[in-house]
Amino acid sequence: MRQKDDGYKINGSFKGKDIISLDQFSTKDLLLLFSHVSRMKDLAQKSKPSALLAGKIVTLIFYEPSSRTFGSFSSAIKRLGGQTVAILDPQHFSSVSKGETLEDTIRVFEAYSDAIVIRHPIAGTSKAAAEAAFFVPIINAGDGIGEHPTQALQDLYTIYKKCNRLDNLMGVMAGDILNGRTIHSLLRGLCLFKKNTIYLLSPKQLRLSRADFLRFLKQGIRLIEIESEKNIPKNAHFWYWTRVQKERFERLSDYEKVKNRFVVTKKLLENFGNTHLILMHPLPRVGEIHPEIDIDERAVYLRSQIRNGLYIRMALLALILGKLT
Amino acid sequence: MRQKDDGYKINGSFKGKDIISLDQFSTKDLLLLFSHVSRMKDLAQKSKPSALLAGKIVTLIFYEPSSRTFGSFSSAIKRLGGQTVAILDPQHFSSVSKGETLEDTIRVFEAYSDAIVIRHPIAGTSKAAAEAAFFVPIINAGDGIGEHPTQALQDLYTIYKKCNRLDNLMGVMAGDILNGRTIHSLLRGLCLFKKNTIYLLSPKQLRLSRADFLRFLKQGIRLIEIESEKNIPKNAHFWYWTRVQKERFERLSDYEKVKNRFVVTKKLLENFGNTHLILMHPLPRVGEIHPEIDIDERAVYLRSQIRNGLYIRMALLALILGKLT
Amino acid sequence: MRQKDDGYKINGSFKGKDIISLDQFSTKDLLLLFSHVSRMKDLAQKSKPSALLAGKIVTLIFYEPSSRTFGSFSSAIKRLGGQTVAILDPQHFSSVSKGETLEDTIRVFEAYSDAIVIRHPIAGTSKAAAEAAFFVPIINAGDGIGEHPTQALQDLYTIYKKCNRLDNLMGVMAGDILNGRTIHSLLRGLCLFKKNTIYLLSPKQLRLSRADFLRFLKQGIRLIEIESEKNIPKNAHFWYWTRVQKERFERLSDYEKVKNRFVVTKKLLENFGNTHLILMHPLPRVGEIHPEIDIDERAVYLRSQIRNGLYIRMALLALILGKLT
Repeated sequence: MRQKDDGYKINGSFKGKDIISLDQFSTKDLLLLFSHVSRMKDLAQKSKPSALLAGKIVTLIFYEPSSRTFGSFSSAIKRLGGQTVAILDPQHFSSVSKGETLEDTIRVFEAYSDAIVIRHPIAGTSKAAAEAAFFVPIINAGDGIGEHPTQALQDLYTIYKKCNRLDNLMGVMAGDILNGRTIHSLLRGLCLFKKNTIYLLSPKQLRLSRADFLRFLKQGIRLIEIESEKNIPKNAHFWYWTRVQKERFERLSDYEKVKNRFVVTKKLLENFGNTHLILMHPLPRVGEIHPEIDIDERAVYLRSQIRNGLYIRMALLALILGKLT
Repeated sequence: MRQKDDGYKINGSFKGKDIISLDQFSTKDLLLLFSHVSRMKDLAQKSKPSALLAGKIVTLIFYEPSSRTFGSFSSAIKRLGGQTVAILDPQHFSSVSKGETLEDTIRVFEAYSDAIVIRHPIAGTSKAAAEAAFFVPIINAGDGIGEHPTQALQDLYTIYKKCNRLDNLMGVMAGDILNGRTIHSLLRGLCLFKKNTIYLLSPKQLRLSRADFLRFLKQGIRLIEIESEKNIPKNAHFWYWTRVQKERFERLSDYEKVKNRFVVTKKLLENFGNTHLILMHPLPRVGEIHPEIDIDERAVYLRSQIRNGLYIRMALLALILGKLT
Repeated sequence: MRQKDDGYKINGSFKGKDIISLDQFSTKDLLLLFSHVSRMKDLAQKSKPSALLAGKIVTLIFYEPSSRTFGSFSSAIKRLGGQTVAILDPQHFSSVSKGETLEDTIRVFEAYSDAIVIRHPIAGTSKAAAEAAFFVPIINAGDGIGEHPTQALQDLYTIYKKCNRLDNLMGVMAGDILNGRTIHSLLRGLCLFKKNTIYLLSPKQLRLSRADFLRFLKQGIRLIEIESEKNIPKNAHFWYWTRVQKERFERLSDYEKVKNRFVVTKKLLENFGNTHLILMHPLPRVGEIHPEIDIDERAVYLRSQIRNGLYIRMALLALILGKLT
């Protein structure tokens, strides 16, 4: 309903903006967002409660379950003194079952809140929601094979925080490069910056599609496909490991063949890693990182990577709701 | 358990009262409630958070899903600085599945809260809950074919706010006049005031039952049944459109025959409406108002009508909990 | 992950401790906890809201439904000004369905919160969760046939509050002595104190197992098994009635035979009770206490017993989170 002539671009001003895609962000927008994250961390850890979002209500409409994203957004809002209204189950949408359109549903819930976070199994839904909303900003919390921008921001920030830059980086991504949404998003984000080189470690059948490969190359990132741990560069700044997604395989036997092809162990880190890299994973993991690694200080997946997701969401919400600039 | 000699009448004092039915309200009670709504609107829109219900906890027990009513009550409580405990799914009521009575369930939850909002599929349940409660007020959020008093109050207030009175009004109600709970409630509310005339526009098979028709007439309202848009009076103060309820029909073909019999379009409004009327709908709609109308300023169903529901619930809760008088 | 050399013992200091089992508490720990409960009651009933847990977020992860325990914990946290993140349905744990371990789930959610309350159908889960957590305390809200320590604390406190001691007591426990988890827990708690005598009233087939009987005797409690109300001692300090658990019987006919064997009625209280006892029940009840008793002031099951559960949880949370000492 709103005029959105600029294709949702942030352009230096977050206030009132919908957050649908990583494409809305310039490098400057990213760095502006990142500049607030440390303060959010301080607020989250301080014993004195923050009132930055006091009086603000954010509705979380989750058409599909995602306890992790739900928990992270809920906590982000509450850590800043805001409140949530949680609408969790599709089966609760009695109006939906009576034939109500997404547009009407969004317009009802915006009357009760200052922003809406939406999770939906179908790509494009969050954009449709943003177009329907009269008054309040919409935040995409994942729409199917579409985007999950706050997760991408969390990963980019985690690397930024460690390396203090997002250019001239050397990274390794491993696992399901073909289907992994988080890998695609992170590649897109890194394309915004210069001179990044990424080694893509996967079985042949889980490589990037040719079209994706060429698209990313064209955007200026250097991609090197490898099939063996032996080809991992010694001087990587980060390893980004992922789960092979069982649900993508038609035959279980095909999945079994590749699922544990690349597993991070103490030995692998010793042989092919270095002492200053960080080991990331979008979670859940199901065996591709051995639990013996969990207490290694390079393993950030169960610690700062998740926490950064909380702080990024705090900063983003505060910016959108006009409480940071 | 409490002495309720007065049949739950409000009689000018909301504090501690159960809200079960529109019958509890005199015209004076309605106007007292309405007198607080504007202030609630101010509180909801102010950037400074309200603490009117600070420290208050309201339990929302929803035995059936209703995301809209749940959202409205949740937001009303939180907009005033209160907290909620949400008990959403019947399947969560493990105690219920073990054979616990409604009475015991209510008495457990009242120990955790300052008021209980209850939604239940069976008419009369909220009254039974009110009779069981030892200490805290019970608010009916809809009990099956019974009542949904806060929705009726929202509709009455929306007309009141527009016309500054609830007597000497001319209205049109359309759609499923036979089964529409919201229409029956609104008629009951308008009967409390003098010299109201309502045109009832519906296919013959969806007219008021004879008994209902006579009962409302006896209560002093003037009812005129019409079957064509051509008979809509030009000087109506409000149009109240409703969905034909598919779930009431045994044969789909019978439903298909009448479902789109009366649709509000630009043309219909031009031909039979006037410039100062308001167009209301209890939602969800499934085609009986064309989306082209949504941006017409007379269309209040996705805007002030919903928001008024929020403000009415805020005022009602604050009155019941003794924070307004 | 944490060093837990002392087997989780409280040893006079609650701050940061996991609460897994009643075994962690010495008599001194219990009395320390109890010493704070009255203040919690005052805070809960005061109109001025408490900010004792302001800025604190507690995640409630309920792998199985328990609306009562969920409501009590939610209210306890909010009564003290804290916030909750509720993760209610196992089906929402999409990560779990993808094969995530409990350990990883716990480590994700601890990043969002200051403490985690966990409910799970399998005994031992809360201990596994406590061992997984890097940073925040875990509180057991019932794990299957394992423990439900806050419920046991609630029952112990209810007797303590009435009698001002937990030794030299005479009690009656009735119903399903064989399977009743709350009865076993209460017996364990009373074993911490001296010279308690408990009459166990049940049909023969629902008596304590021989092993349990001997274990409790060894711990210093006096147990007397009776089969008829006639053998109830006149000078009991408390009666603790329980439901015969239908779900434990293979044949319905076996259940029907014993389910209403012992029912508390006015007459039973007159004939075998005394004027100063308290009548307790862990709820839900399904007929074993006649509703005519509900307004008897000795009947605490729907009043102070439930409320004490709220106050005990408030005190426990405040102690664990370092806001009381």
